[in-house]
Amino acid sequence: MQLQCPMPQLDFDKIMLGHGSGGVLTHKLLESGIFELFKNDLLDERHDGAIFSLPAGTRTAFSTDSYVVSPVFFPGGNIGELAVNGTVNDLAMCGANAQYLSLGLILEEGLPMQSFWDILVAIKFAAQKAGVQIVTGDTKVVERGKGDQIFINTSGIGTVHPKAQIGFRQVQAGDKILISGMVATHGVAIMSVREGLEFETTLESDTCNLNHTVMHLLDAFGEKIHLLRDPTRGGVATTLNEIARDTRLGIDLWQKNIPVSEAVAGACELLGLDPLYVANEGIFMAFVAADAADACLEQLRSLEYGAQAAIIGEVVEAHPRQVVLTSKIGGKRVVNMLIGEQLPRIC
Amino acid sequence: MQLQCPMPQLDFDKIMLGHGSGGVLTHKLLESGIFELFKNDLLDERHDGAIFSLPAGTRTAFSTDSYVVSPVFFPGGNIGELAVNGTVNDLAMCGANAQYLSLGLILEEGLPMQSFWDILVAIKFAAQKAGVQIVTGDTKVVERGKGDQIFINTSGIGTVHPKAQIGFRQVQAGDKILISGMVATHGVAIMSVREGLEFETTLESDTCNLNHTVMHLLDAFGEKIHLLRDPTRGGVATTLNEIARDTRLGIDLWQKNIPVSEAVAGACELLGLDPLYVANEGIFMAFVAADAADACLEQLRSLEYGAQAAIIGEVVEAHPRQVVLTSKIGGKRVVNMLIGEQLPRIC
Repeated sequence: MQLQCPMPQLDFDKIMLGHGSGGVLTHKLLESGIFELFKNDLLDERHDGAIFSLPAGTRTAFSTDSYVVSPVFFPGGNIGELAVNGTVNDLAMCGANAQYLSLGLILEEGLPMQSFWDILVAIKFAAQKAGVQIVTGDTKVVERGKGDQIFINTSGIGTVHPKAQIGFRQVQAGDKILISGMVATHGVAIMSVREGLEFETTLESDTCNLNHTVMHLLDAFGEKIHLLRDPTRGGVATTLNEIARDTRLGIDLWQKNIPVSEAVAGACELLGLDPLYVANEGIFMAFVAADAADACLEQLRSLEYGAQAAIIGEVVEAHPRQVVLTSKIGGKRVVNMLIGEQLPRIC
Repeated sequence: MQLQCPMPQLDFDKIMLGHGSGGVLTHKLLESGIFELFKNDLLDERHDGAIFSLPAGTRTAFSTDSYVVSPVFFPGGNIGELAVNGTVNDLAMCGANAQYLSLGLILEEGLPMQSFWDILVAIKFAAQKAGVQIVTGDTKVVERGKGDQIFINTSGIGTVHPKAQIGFRQVQAGDKILISGMVATHGVAIMSVREGLEFETTLESDTCNLNHTVMHLLDAFGEKIHLLRDPTRGGVATTLNEIARDTRLGIDLWQKNIPVSEAVAGACELLGLDPLYVANEGIFMAFVAADAADACLEQLRSLEYGAQAAIIGEVVEAHPRQVVLTSKIGGKRVVNMLIGEQLPRIC
C-alpha cells in the first residue's frame, strides 16, 4: 500500500538550506506534494496553528517526543512511522486515544529527496492506521554536518478514555504486571543493522500503534487497569524501576514468563545485551488489579498486537522500591535501572 | 531576575550520550534540578504525557515549531526564550492564549551544562511571563558532530478568544494592515553577531510574547480583526505575499510608514539586506476592518509591545495576488516572496 504514493516530479533531488528559509523554496517544497500527501481540513487552513473543538466534558492528554533514531531506515520501518507510533503510544499510556499530531522536522542539508519522501509516506500511513490527523507542522533545515539526515518531533493531543483512572498512585500491592508482546525486538533490530549482523531470520522492529488495543482494554476493564507504560529507552528493567521508585512498592519479576523470541535472545547473547534493558517500541505493560488480570490477559491475547501477551510479575509490599527477578532456575536477584547508555539513538 | 536560579551542584559539566539513555544518567540529569525548575502539578505526575481538562465550549488551537537558531546565545536572548515566545506567538496569531507547552530537547554530546542550564532558566522565565505551563517534555542526546549544541521543539495548546474570527477568508479589500513594532530587529541582531559586527548601539533581538497584547485587541475589536500573522522567516515581504496568494487580493504597502530603527536600517545597508525580508520575532501584523483601524492602532500603541505600531498598508482589489510597495519618494514596485535563503537558522 505504501507504494501508492510515488514521489512527485521535482527540480531538486536533495534538501537545500533554502528549503528552510520560509520563502519561495520552502513553499515549493511544501507545494511539491507534501500538503497534498497530508491533506485534511485543518491543515488546509495553512495557519500558524490548527483550530478545533474537543468534545465537551472529556479530559485531554498532551505528549511530545523527538525522534533521532540512527539509521533512519531499519528493518521493519523508518523514523517516520516510529515518530507517529511513539507519540500515539505515549498518549495511549495516559489512557488516551490520539486525535491530533503536530510534525516538526529538522532536516540536514543534502538529505536525498527520495529518503525524505519515503519517510513522509510512512508518516502518512502510520497516522492513517492509528486514526490520528496531522494538523500542524514546521520544517527547519540545518547545514551539512550540523544534524544527521532528519530529526522528527511529534506532539500529540488525545482524549482520555472516560473509564481510565491511570497513574502510579493507583498501583497497589497484588497488582499483576501484563506485557503485551515480545521484549527487546526493536532495539535488537536497530542494533543488528548498525553492527552489520545477519541472522537466519530477519529481525524486524515491532513498531506499531497501541492505541486501539489499549482502548479495547479500557472499554472492558476500566479502572481495573491501574497503570500503563511502554518500556522504550532503558527497557523493561528501567521502566519497572521507575514505577517501583514512584509507587514506593516492590516488584517481583518472573523471568520464565517474559516473552523473548528465539532470534532476539540469540542476538542479545551475541551482542552482549540483556533483553531487559533493550528498548522496545511496539509493546506495553499494564498493571492490573489481581481479580481482573487473567480476564485482561485473555482479552489482550485476542487483540491485534497482543497474541504473545503474558503476566510477567506482580507488585508486592516486600522490598519497596526494588525490582527482584526470579530467574528461570529459581534464583533471585535485584534488577537495577540502566546505567549509562546501552544503545544510543534507538528512537 | 534570571540570576535567581543558580545552577545546581553536579558531578558532570557537559552533556554526555548517557544523558539520553532513559536510564540512571537521564534521571540524574532531570533530578539535578530540572524537574524542580519547571515544577507544576501536571509535570509532577511524571507520566508519558500531561492530562488536563480544557474549559467546555472553547475552541482549541495547537501549534508546533522547532528552533535551531545559531548562535544559541545572541544579544537580547537565547534559543530558550525564543522557543517559548515563538510558539506562544504562533498560537496568538490563531487568536489563542497559550495554556500548555511541551518541550522537546535534542542535545549534542558535549554541550556545556552551564549553557544548558542558562537556556532552561530562560525557558522558565519566558513561560512564566507568557502565563503558560510546561507540562510534558522529552530529552534526546546525539553524538558530537551530529547536532549543533541544542535544538528545541515546543508545541503549544491555547484557548481561542471567544470573539476571534481569524483566517485569510475574513480578509477583504479595504482592510488596513497594522504592524505592532519595528521590523527586522531580530534578524539583524543575529546576523550582526554572526558577522562579528559592532555598532554604536547594541542591536538586540526583540523576542517577546505577544499573547497578552493580542488578547487585549481581541477583547476590544473582536471580529473586526480579520487576520493576524507574525512575519518571522522570510520577513514582512514573504508573509504579505502568502496572504495575497491565499486571499487572491492585492496588497498596497507604504514604505514611509514602515517602522525601522535607525540602527537596524544602517546595519541592513552595511550587510546588504532588505529589512522587508529579514526575519522578525517580537512583532505581528493585523489585518483590521477599515472602520476600526484607527482605534485599533491607538489601543495597540498604548499596549506593552505596541508603542511603535503603525498602519503600513491596505488590502485592495487591484493587482490581485501581488504586493506593491510605494517607496518613500512615490515610486511603485512589486515586492516578491523571498527567494532562497537570506539568513539561515535565524530561529
